[in-house]
Amino acid sequence: MTRRERNAVGRVYIVGAGPGDPELLTLKARRLIDEADVVYYDALVGTEVLDGVEGKCVFVGKRRGFHLFAQEDINRLMVESALAGERVVRLKGGDPFVFGRGGEEIIYLHEHGIDCEVVPGVSAAFAAAAAASLPLTHRGVSSSVAICAGSPAERVSIPDTDTKVFYMAGQSAREIVAAAVERGLPSDARVALIQNASLPDERVWMLEAGEIIERREPFPSPLVVIIGEVVEIGASIRADNRTGNEPKPSAATAVSGRR
Amino acid sequence: MTRRERNAVGRVYIVGAGPGDPELLTLKARRLIDEADVVYYDALVGTEVLDGVEGKCVFVGKRRGFHLFAQEDINRLMVESALAGERVVRLKGGDPFVFGRGGEEIIYLHEHGIDCEVVPGVSAAFAAAAAASLPLTHRGVSSSVAICAGSPAERVSIPDTDTKVFYMAGQSAREIVAAAVERGLPSDARVALIQNASLPDERVWMLEAGEIIERREPFPSPLVVIIGEVVEIGASIRADNRTGNEPKPSAATAVSGRR
Repeated sequence: MTRRERNAVGRVYIVGAGPGDPELLTLKARRLIDEADVVYYDALVGTEVLDGVEGKCVFVGKRRGFHLFAQEDINRLMVESALAGERVVRLKGGDPFVFGRGGEEIIYLHEHGIDCEVVPGVSAAFAAAAAASLPLTHRGVSSSVAICAGSPAERVSIPDTDTKVFYMAGQSAREIVAAAVERGLPSDARVALIQNASLPDERVWMLEAGEIIERREPFPSPLVVIIGEVVEIGASIRADNRTGNEPKPSAATAVSGRR
Repeated sequence: MTRRERNAVGRVYIVGAGPGDPELLTLKARRLIDEADVVYYDALVGTEVLDGVEGKCVFVGKRRGFHLFAQEDINRLMVESALAGERVVRLKGGDPFVFGRGGEEIIYLHEHGIDCEVVPGVSAAFAAAAAASLPLTHRGVSSSVAICAGSPAERVSIPDTDTKVFYMAGQSAREIVAAAVERGLPSDARVALIQNASLPDERVWMLEAGEIIERREPFPSPLVVIIGEVVEIGASIRADNRTGNEPKPSAATAVSGRR
């Protein structure tokens, strides 16, 4: 019996691929990718995870900042594959329900009568926190953490949680930190900036809020920005260079601030 | 060469085991557990993930609500193992840096000169959202999500993010929802309650805020509560019973509210 004979209409799995390190894929994601007839994958997914996969792998992400496929096209592709009886994996960076348009896709599939399951993944905030040795919550210091869109800069707002994590913050790091200072963050409080968390070229900086606001050079992308008292914990651990989450050597020379 | 000869002092990996489904372990967690000399694990970790593991597995979590080991004892055990040259995995439910005391452990290990690495995991919020077919962010509806402690009830505060997720909310669901209504949540807005997300006995309810506040029966534990406009997306998808994330049959009879 071939895969297609098993079901008249295939199922779609909307799967989180995690923050980038192929080892941060879940066992379930790994199995579903291996069993898929077709995988539609995003730019944020490291292609190593697709090495040796037998099913078709179709890139539907952005290239040089441009979408090759509109969301509507991706939706239609998934429905066509499922109606053809294929077992479909829609593979997204991080977790599918955090800035991944997983909601739009599940609604569309649902409207078209396609059976669908969401498989959660490790979102970038957690890889960034691990990279910076920085607990997102901590007894007596932080009992809440927000994950926020850092882009577009003009619509950034600062939540009232103890810890605040901004995604896609490369373009807006200055505005985010300035808004946080306006809301009461001391200008000498350290802020963590994490680029490519969990990847070999991962970099971590811990800079004072004031330094970030005054900085003229652009920040790299993609960038996660973490604000809150917990950053000081990461800063004190990292200052002694003992953890396994240290910045790669290049990071040490990239910024002038305290780490 | 045995493992112990490799290093004078062993390394400690503080590893997230994910929300409960053993398949939601990451590949890295799987590898580190398999390579460990000793695994210190919590109550929230499904013991299936330890089946067939060659290293020692030591339970250091809660049993019937009581801690068998104080945090200080766990810290000391890890340091002793590492100083004995062992490769140590400290395995925690969810992500180690979200309500997991990972911060306390990394500080202690750091103070004792032990090399340490944090491996992120899938936190319960993401498994709960997947279970409820409910995107945590959604274009035009939600661009921020907070993860908050639901316990103790008397210290619960409602963040100003679009979506709000409360952990450990079994005892405090009523107080949380009442506080949210006080902050402007309409009393007919639906709230998602998810028990044992990702496990075989996973259950999902979507009840109106007013119903939750008036309910006399206790809510089950462990429970994740999700508040925000995105809950309506999950509710409308689930109403048609088409997704793969439906509640188990028992859930349908457990509550009287709209789903």
